[in-house]
Amino acid sequence: MKPVNQIKIKKQMSVNGLVKQMGSAGVLGAGRLGKAVNICEAMIKDKQCKVFLGLAGSLVPGGMRKIIIDLIENKWVDVVVTTGATLTHDLGEALGYRHYQGSADANDAELHRKGLDRVYESYMPNKIYEGMEGFIAKNFNNFKDKKSINGLLWEIGRLTPSKSILKSCFESKIPIFCPALSDSGIGLMFWGQIAKGRAIKTNAFEDMKEIIDIAWTAKRTGVIYFGGGVPKNYIQQAMQFSKKADYGVQVTMDRAEPGGSSGAELKEGISWGKMNPDARFVDLICDSNIALPIIFAALKERIK
Amino acid sequence: MKPVNQIKIKKQMSVNGLVKQMGSAGVLGAGRLGKAVNICEAMIKDKQCKVFLGLAGSLVPGGMRKIIIDLIENKWVDVVVTTGATLTHDLGEALGYRHYQGSADANDAELHRKGLDRVYESYMPNKIYEGMEGFIAKNFNNFKDKKSINGLLWEIGRLTPSKSILKSCFESKIPIFCPALSDSGIGLMFWGQIAKGRAIKTNAFEDMKEIIDIAWTAKRTGVIYFGGGVPKNYIQQAMQFSKKADYGVQVTMDRAEPGGSSGAELKEGISWGKMNPDARFVDLICDSNIALPIIFAALKERIK
Amino acid sequence: MKPVNQIKIKKQMSVNGLVKQMGSAGVLGAGRLGKAVNICEAMIKDKQCKVFLGLAGSLVPGGMRKIIIDLIENKWVDVVVTTGATLTHDLGEALGYRHYQGSADANDAELHRKGLDRVYESYMPNKIYEGMEGFIAKNFNNFKDKKSINGLLWEIGRLTPSKSILKSCFESKIPIFCPALSDSGIGLMFWGQIAKGRAIKTNAFEDMKEIIDIAWTAKRTGVIYFGGGVPKNYIQQAMQFSKKADYGVQVTMDRAEPGGSSGAELKEGISWGKMNPDARFVDLICDSNIALPIIFAALKERIK
Amino acid sequence: MKPVNQIKIKKQMSVNGLVKQMGSAGVLGAGRLGKAVNICEAMIKDKQCKVFLGLAGSLVPGGMRKIIIDLIENKWVDVVVTTGATLTHDLGEALGYRHYQGSADANDAELHRKGLDRVYESYMPNKIYEGMEGFIAKNFNNFKDKKSINGLLWEIGRLTPSKSILKSCFESKIPIFCPALSDSGIGLMFWGQIAKGRAIKTNAFEDMKEIIDIAWTAKRTGVIYFGGGVPKNYIQQAMQFSKKADYGVQVTMDRAEPGGSSGAELKEGISWGKMNPDARFVDLICDSNIALPIIFAALKERIK
Repeated sequence: MKPVNQIKIKKQMSVNGLVKQMGSAGVLGAGRLGKAVNICEAMIKDKQCKVFLGLAGSLVPGGMRKIIIDLIENKWVDVVVTTGATLTHDLGEALGYRHYQGSADANDAELHRKGLDRVYESYMPNKIYEGMEGFIAKNFNNFKDKKSINGLLWEIGRLTPSKSILKSCFESKIPIFCPALSDSGIGLMFWGQIAKGRAIKTNAFEDMKEIIDIAWTAKRTGVIYFGGGVPKNYIQQAMQFSKKADYGVQVTMDRAEPGGSSGAELKEGISWGKMNPDARFVDLICDSNIALPIIFAALKERIK
Repeated sequence: MKPVNQIKIKKQMSVNGLVKQMGSAGVLGAGRLGKAVNICEAMIKDKQCKVFLGLAGSLVPGGMRKIIIDLIENKWVDVVVTTGATLTHDLGEALGYRHYQGSADANDAELHRKGLDRVYESYMPNKIYEGMEGFIAKNFNNFKDKKSINGLLWEIGRLTPSKSILKSCFESKIPIFCPALSDSGIGLMFWGQIAKGRAIKTNAFEDMKEIIDIAWTAKRTGVIYFGGGVPKNYIQQAMQFSKKADYGVQVTMDRAEPGGSSGAELKEGISWGKMNPDARFVDLICDSNIALPIIFAALKERIK
Repeated sequence: MKPVNQIKIKKQMSVNGLVKQMGSAGVLGAGRLGKAVNICEAMIKDKQCKVFLGLAGSLVPGGMRKIIIDLIENKWVDVVVTTGATLTHDLGEALGYRHYQGSADANDAELHRKGLDRVYESYMPNKIYEGMEGFIAKNFNNFKDKKSINGLLWEIGRLTPSKSILKSCFESKIPIFCPALSDSGIGLMFWGQIAKGRAIKTNAFEDMKEIIDIAWTAKRTGVIYFGGGVPKNYIQQAMQFSKKADYGVQVTMDRAEPGGSSGAELKEGISWGKMNPDARFVDLICDSNIALPIIFAALKERIK
Repeated sequence: MKPVNQIKIKKQMSVNGLVKQMGSAGVLGAGRLGKAVNICEAMIKDKQCKVFLGLAGSLVPGGMRKIIIDLIENKWVDVVVTTGATLTHDLGEALGYRHYQGSADANDAELHRKGLDRVYESYMPNKIYEGMEGFIAKNFNNFKDKKSINGLLWEIGRLTPSKSILKSCFESKIPIFCPALSDSGIGLMFWGQIAKGRAIKTNAFEDMKEIIDIAWTAKRTGVIYFGGGVPKNYIQQAMQFSKKADYGVQVTMDRAEPGGSSGAELKEGISWGKMNPDARFVDLICDSNIALPIIFAALKERIK
């Protein structure tokens, strides 16, 4: 049995220095954060391992956009699965809009009059929809023949006028999946065009082949989840029907007891054949908007 | 100001009698449960109101299937949006499989060897996938021309050999939406057929028109969410782009502070134009597998 | 393996009828609620078992006061441990004050000007402190020689002008412990008298003998926790140093992962010798203000 | 309105550099962590401000002991309030015991046989109680006349053979309060001596004067809470009956909705007169075992 090391903080510590100290505790929040970074490092450095990143929750309104772009441009991940909301926030910023610092105690009726959509204590300007509508309408011919959602998203990324999560996926040739794209502002903009009589060929099941193929042909796989929802579940099912994950890091604030997929502990995946019984994995109970910058900063110190 | 009424429990109280007593507290958990039932009752009894039900989480493995079927057969709701997982569990039971009482402390590697997929402390037999594969393969010709996911789901419901959530939606002509159907066992079975060279026409954006139309043409709308995820968000976006909800009940264990859609308080929807500023709504912080039977039993006493 | 029973709700179901149906699911929220009632029933009906009730959180402002009084008057519990806050709310109501229905979105500065102390969405009138001060000052001679906190609380209960948790404990001769009484409005009122030069003999360690003796001399013990904090921990330590609990029901919204006592799963107590390895126990993840009325109403149908 | 700054991580960033970047987001988890550090820095640097630190939860088994000792030795806080459990863990380590890295999935009955008490995934050797018993028995004459719990704790600190939270409080003359000391291993050891016929004079209400006096005579006050429970509430009540806090930082995983004190948002304190309406304060929803090392490391870079 190893004793819990009592953490010793030094002046001017680097983030990685702190994370190592935290990891020395070995247990509970600090220890798990340390393990999360170790496991991320291991799967990224494992050249035979394909890394699947699931992103849910309020990451762009929380200030995580450049970190995600960095992760992709560094090619530390091989597949991204995310929500339509995240891509809508990302496209909005790519089109020149910003999110704003607000308050969770704001008067929502007043915000509505001002055209501000509240995301807890962050505000998104409602005008973002106009910008997106124009962008989608103008480029619709580029989109209409895309059979897969990934194909559609890469094309959006290619066409966005500035750096974005979508553009970095396109440029780095990282597949990006979003099974419920219709459940988002971007989805609504496509619906708007369809309602005007335009047609699009995107098939609801087309992307499945690709994500499962990537897992299937990989020597080893690793999963990193910030938040749950469809992104986590879609990656988990790719593991189940191809190659069990050998590495796993999950960061979530959802609870396991109600039984939903978002809060499920990674070890549950062993029963499903989603996770290798001798995989290295850890569940970190933490807000992604706290854990992601710390994990990424520590990794940046460790990896090349 | 109204005083908090101290609840008085009587012998042989009916569920509705208890819920009324709980509602008399007016505040906190008991008071909010009371309000949730009152608001559900009001929206169901409001003949001009279209009720949108969002279902996420582990409801069928938790024993909620017949309650959901009852809700639909009673036509207390006009639209159902749910996850592929819920429909997979539902179809599995319709094909003769059961979920089993297990333990959250089980050895997952052992469960895997036994072919049991763990959902916290409920087990799903992995053989369910064989049954579903056979069902989807056999009936594929009925599915292949369905352009919308709702159309596909109704057809599955029509063909299932026994009562199910899907069948009750089909028979009661209640639209059922599942934007991320590809993220589920059912989705996988379709992918399996596609991988064998069969084709299916389901379009990723096709359903949006219908859900928005229903909201748009309604005189009033109400939303009931058990759990968050895509079901909640998809209904919320339908409200945003058509008719703000006049009634709202949300039952969730997710937190608001990380900023994700699942945990967002209903009042946040006012800023987006999803919720009417003078709507009647309540957030009930409770496990759906606890709240749903209580709410439904109380409603059953109140409504015809 | 037992299948998960899908719950069937009937019209005009009694609460116990519903709880039995919920218990039939066997797992997750509904199943655990069913188990919680079964285990409470078993320990209350076991004549050789001393039942220890721990109460924390916002129960009186949430409308639970009469339920708690009923529990005590029925002698379903043998020992009560609670917080000073709960007793302050209870004494306040006994002195004629009420709690009020409020809003979690209220302007707190305005409430302060109005003399309303907010407890999430319940308000306590600040004048309660004047009433308590008068009560404690007037009766101080009755209190000053009480060596134990239990002795002090029974005397307060004896003197309160109307039915209360404190009075019912005194009248039913149910020991009531509150280790951190100084951390409460009642504590402050004693401090006020001491600050005026009066003295009180209450010893910080005096009650320990009694609670441990009760557990020690019992044939069997059972624990019921609504909320965590000192009440739970103080009972757990009495179990550890006397007789391991044979029955356990915990209702909490706190999480286990941060490692605090409030959120710790009951099974953890087995390692400490607080819980018998073959005890019947269940952790119910639920707000006490929701679970307590349901559990109590079901028990009322089952017992006597 | 200020835009949400998208965080940019640089190589070899110091912890404070990262925290500043996180603070630049302005909102949600990262933004709140940034604010928490800013507010801690402001209250520590404000020479007219007395800082009250509340510590609950599993901090010593989580590896936070040296950080807490550093905080005290730096005299960044003026008052410490904590739980008996934290002091028991601290005294145990001071007497030469260690906590051990374990697993939340361990077999608790087996741990019991091995004499290991589980704290989620950390283990405390049960032998710790023998060491403490010897220590308390041997030094009982030094303790028996201590009227206040603070006096008792300082004396324990003075006598402990090595550096500890208790010793650093004694040596730095930082008052340390623990209203529910009887609810702990240390309390049990005193009870053990009392059970053998020895007497101790510690009065249950004695400490109240001192903590309220410190707040009363301060020009300004600030509160820092890691976890809730009695430590938070006891400081909050000192604020209520003396000087409203001008600064506040709360780190917790407890929820506000059930209405308990532990999860209550700091703004609620404004209604009670515990918090100044124009105080600078923030609620950080995070595990203390994650947030404390980060906050402390950032402060160490900023202060002196």
